[in-house]
Amino acid sequence: MTSQLRPLTLHDLDLICRQRNDMFRTMDMPEDLIARMAPAFRAWLQDRLSDETYFGFMAELGGQPVGGIGLMEIEFPPHPAHPDTSRRGRILNLFVEPEARGQGIARQLVEASESEFRTRGLTYAVLHAMDMSRPLYEKDGWRGTAEMEKVLIPDRSPATGHLVIAQPDGHPNHYTNWQKQSRT
Amino acid sequence: MTSQLRPLTLHDLDLICRQRNDMFRTMDMPEDLIARMAPAFRAWLQDRLSDETYFGFMAELGGQPVGGIGLMEIEFPPHPAHPDTSRRGRILNLFVEPEARGQGIARQLVEASESEFRTRGLTYAVLHAMDMSRPLYEKDGWRGTAEMEKVLIPDRSPATGHLVIAQPDGHPNHYTNWQKQSRT
Repeated sequence: MTSQLRPLTLHDLDLICRQRNDMFRTMDMPEDLIARMAPAFRAWLQDRLSDETYFGFMAELGGQPVGGIGLMEIEFPPHPAHPDTSRRGRILNLFVEPEARGQGIARQLVEASESEFRTRGLTYAVLHAMDMSRPLYEKDGWRGTAEMEKVLIPDRSPATGHLVIAQPDGHPNHYTNWQKQSRT
Repeated sequence: MTSQLRPLTLHDLDLICRQRNDMFRTMDMPEDLIARMAPAFRAWLQDRLSDETYFGFMAELGGQPVGGIGLMEIEFPPHPAHPDTSRRGRILNLFVEPEARGQGIARQLVEASESEFRTRGLTYAVLHAMDMSRPLYEKDGWRGTAEMEKVLIPDRSPATGHLVIAQPDGHPNHYTNWQKQSRT
């Protein structure tokens, strides 16, 4: 059975938030970090769905949502990959419910997204892939970039000696430790 | 001799453009692609320097510029690495003149940039590293991300059978072929 895709609307706000949290759970992200991110993400998404700078698709099987994907048009300086424009696309929050996997729904969502970008005149796009989705993207012609990241304001936890991130409110951010675990 | 850093100004417009072109030459980017990107980048940078959404530092030795770095504050949905905010930093256009390399100037520019981000309340940053700069960044705590990219609207060149990118004006974009060469 092929899933039906429909454009995202503001009514999908909570569903997208739940899918995103489940996406991070798939990556073994600590629950406290997911919980901490959730309210800021929801507020951000509400604004972005409202002004349609976050768009994309929901996949449905028999009228029930089984997955989704988010898209944005972002600014990046004119670059060899898009030499005439500062516009590029970003894919995010690709998610398919565990029970609906293996039916090509993720691929369907990605292909619809590429097509949507082309329609909007975007000829280059980026995303951050979960390990699980990487083979799908590679088969579709996506390749890794040389992007690097750093969490700033590191401090050493007096208790464990591990690097923790002192946030302005003093609440530690476990992202760096999670990274360490998840990539070794 | 330690280089002196000073903030970028609009007067640095052409110098930054030249440094960026030389940065891409270091990566063996084809000259036609660099030339094609140049006017769009210059127009973009002029706007961004004017409204100070592009900032950063120039490094000088004896009053002469020998390198530079560009910074931006960008929007990205609240994320485990910055759970309370949609603000993150981006470093770009790190460049040191060949005759001034090996004196720690790149490191000085990167450290000043991290400090500038902290001052602005940014606790997470990204960049795209040239192969040459990767060890420097790694030593400073930067690590690779799972970012992937795709050039959309591919078509096959009838002459060579290689993938080329048909731009709206019919001018081919050699980025994909350059990637292939540069990463094998």
